[in-house]
Amino acid sequence: MTIKLTQTVKKGGCAAKVPALVLREILGGLRFPPVIPGVEVDGANFDDAAIFKISDDVALVQTLDFFTPIVDSPYDFGAIAAANALSDVYAMGGTPKTCMAILAAPLAVLEPAVIQAVLQGASDVIAQAGASLVGGHSIDDDTLKFGLSVTGLVHPQKVWINSLAQVGDKLILTKPLGTGTICAGMKRQDIDESRAHAAISSMKRLNNVQDFLTPDELGQIHAATDITGFGLLGHGSQLAKASGVTLHISATALPVFDLTYECLGQGFLTKAHRSNDEYTQKRVSFGTQVTELQKLLSFDPQTSGGLLLSVSAQSADGIIEALRDHFPGTCVVGEVRAKSSLDVYLE
Amino acid sequence: MTIKLTQTVKKGGCAAKVPALVLREILGGLRFPPVIPGVEVDGANFDDAAIFKISDDVALVQTLDFFTPIVDSPYDFGAIAAANALSDVYAMGGTPKTCMAILAAPLAVLEPAVIQAVLQGASDVIAQAGASLVGGHSIDDDTLKFGLSVTGLVHPQKVWINSLAQVGDKLILTKPLGTGTICAGMKRQDIDESRAHAAISSMKRLNNVQDFLTPDELGQIHAATDITGFGLLGHGSQLAKASGVTLHISATALPVFDLTYECLGQGFLTKAHRSNDEYTQKRVSFGTQVTELQKLLSFDPQTSGGLLLSVSAQSADGIIEALRDHFPGTCVVGEVRAKSSLDVYLE
Repeated sequence: MTIKLTQTVKKGGCAAKVPALVLREILGGLRFPPVIPGVEVDGANFDDAAIFKISDDVALVQTLDFFTPIVDSPYDFGAIAAANALSDVYAMGGTPKTCMAILAAPLAVLEPAVIQAVLQGASDVIAQAGASLVGGHSIDDDTLKFGLSVTGLVHPQKVWINSLAQVGDKLILTKPLGTGTICAGMKRQDIDESRAHAAISSMKRLNNVQDFLTPDELGQIHAATDITGFGLLGHGSQLAKASGVTLHISATALPVFDLTYECLGQGFLTKAHRSNDEYTQKRVSFGTQVTELQKLLSFDPQTSGGLLLSVSAQSADGIIEALRDHFPGTCVVGEVRAKSSLDVYLE
Repeated sequence: MTIKLTQTVKKGGCAAKVPALVLREILGGLRFPPVIPGVEVDGANFDDAAIFKISDDVALVQTLDFFTPIVDSPYDFGAIAAANALSDVYAMGGTPKTCMAILAAPLAVLEPAVIQAVLQGASDVIAQAGASLVGGHSIDDDTLKFGLSVTGLVHPQKVWINSLAQVGDKLILTKPLGTGTICAGMKRQDIDESRAHAAISSMKRLNNVQDFLTPDELGQIHAATDITGFGLLGHGSQLAKASGVTLHISATALPVFDLTYECLGQGFLTKAHRSNDEYTQKRVSFGTQVTELQKLLSFDPQTSGGLLLSVSAQSADGIIEALRDHFPGTCVVGEVRAKSSLDVYLE
C-alpha cells in the first residue's frame, strides 16, 4: 500500500504554524539576548529572514522553516518544504548557499525509503537553487515534519527588507493564491492530487526571481516578502506596518489556481483561515464589493507562496514581462499609498 | 498544577535521535546536492557542524539540534537545548553568533507562559554565549520539541575537525557522563529533579572551552567532538575513523555524576543505549576488566555532553588545569594510538 502522507497528520504545511496572536503573547514578555554587532535585521519587523553583516560586502541571510506533510507524495513534500524554506532567502534578495535539514519522523510507521524520498525531493530543489546540504538533525517523532535552516549571502546594501516599500510603488505577486484551501481539500481526500498539479508545481517552484531580472530591474524592487502561513493580508500588513504605508490591493486582480475558488466554495478551510482573520482584523478593511470567498482567499495560508514585491511604478510592466514565463500568474495586485489608519485595503 | 514536561513525551533529549544505523540506511542511497565552493566540511565525516568558507579569514560554523524535554522545568529545558545546540559550534573551535529557534509545541496543552519559559531559558544561555536570537519557526504539534540552528564564525585555518587527531595525543573529556541514564530515571519519576542538580547544571553549561584557554593552548587541540546522542563510543569511533587512528580509553578514568552508576545499576536505560551498542559493535573492543555498567556508561546517550578533545600529550595537564574550575570533572580519559582494526578500545 502506498502511504498517503497527508493522512498521517492532523494539519499540514504552513497551516500548522503557531498563530500570530499566540506567538505575540509568547514573545511579548521575553527578555531576548542582546543584539550583537552585525545583526542588522532580526525578528522585530517580521522580516522573512535575519541579516547578519560579516563585512562591508557580505551579509548572511538566515531563515528556518519546517512543517507537516501537505501533499501525499513524499518526494513532492520534501521538494515543497525545501522551496518554502529557501523562499525566505530570496524574499530578502539573497542567494542560498547552505542548508541544514530538520527532520522528525515516525520510524515505526514510515519506511526508510519514504523518508529518503522526502530528502531526495528536498535535495533536488536545493541543487536547483545552487546550494548545498551541509547537515541537519533528525528525531523519532509521532508525526512527520520536515524543513530546512537556510543561509544565503547578500550584499548588505542590496537587502530587500520589509520597511522600504515606497508610496507610489506597484505591488506584484509572483504566484497564484490558494494552496491552503487546495491542500485542505486534498487532506479531506475530496480533491485528488492529480487535479492539484498546478498548485503542487507552484509550491515546488523556487522564488528565485533574481535569476531572471537585470541589475537595473532588481534595483527597482524596494521591498519584498513571501506569502506563507499568515496569508496575503497577514504578510501584507506586516510589510505595510514596517514601511509605514498602506497597501491597496484589488481583490479581482489576485491570481488564483483553477481549483482555488472551487475549494474555498466547498468550505475546505484550515484553522489558519480563522486565525489569520483574527490577526489582521483591526488592520485591514474590505471594500463593499469584496465577496466572502475573496475574503477567505486573502486569509488563505500559503505554503511556499509567491513573493509580494513592492516595485517602482514605472518598472512594474518590465518586471512582470521578465518573470511571467517562469512564474505563471505573476501580475500587479495593487499599490502602495500613504499611511492611513489601516495597513491594508482590499477593494 | 505545575506541568512536568518529561511526562508529556515518550522519550526525551538526544535519546530521541534517529538511530545512527537507520540514518545510514536513509542517507545511503540519497543523491545529495552538489557540494558548492566554500563548503569545507559537510556531513560526510560525522563532524559536529559544517564549515562554509566566506573569505580567507572567515568561515561559518553551522549546526542544528532540537529535541523533546529531558527535564521537567521549562526554563531548564530551554537552557539545556540551547547549550546543546551551541555546543557543536564550540566543538569545531568556533564562536557562536546567530541562533534561530526551532519550536514545536502542543498549544492546546501548554500555556503560553510555559513556552515562554522555554524560550527564556534558551535566551539566557544564548546571551551568555554572546550570540543573538535572530529568528525561528514555531508549529503547533502533539509534543514539545525545542532547539536551535546556530551559526558561528571561525578562522578557516583554526577549525577543530574530526579528522586531525594525532597518534600520541591525550584525550580529554570536559563533562561527566551519565545524563542519559539520569534523565531516564527522572522521566520514570524514580529520581527527583533535586537530586539531579549536578547533571542539570552540567547540561546547561556552555562548552566554551575557548574562553578559558590561551592561543598557545588552543593550538595544541588537534581535534574535538562533543559527546551527545551516540554516546562516548559512538562519537569516539566517528572521530577515530575520520582521523585514521584508534582511541584507547580507560573505563575507570571516565568522569561520572554521583548518580550515574546508581541510575545505570537500577536499569534506567533508553532505546539509545541499545542502538548505540549496535552502532559501534564491530568497531569497539572491551577489555576483560570492563564491567557491564561501564559498558552501559560508554553507550549512554548524552544531552549537552562534554567535548572530547584530542590534544598534544605535553599540553594535556595545562589544559585540564585551565578548564577544571569551569568544567568540573574534566580529565584525561585515554589516548590516541596508531590505527588498528578497531576504532576504540575501552580498557
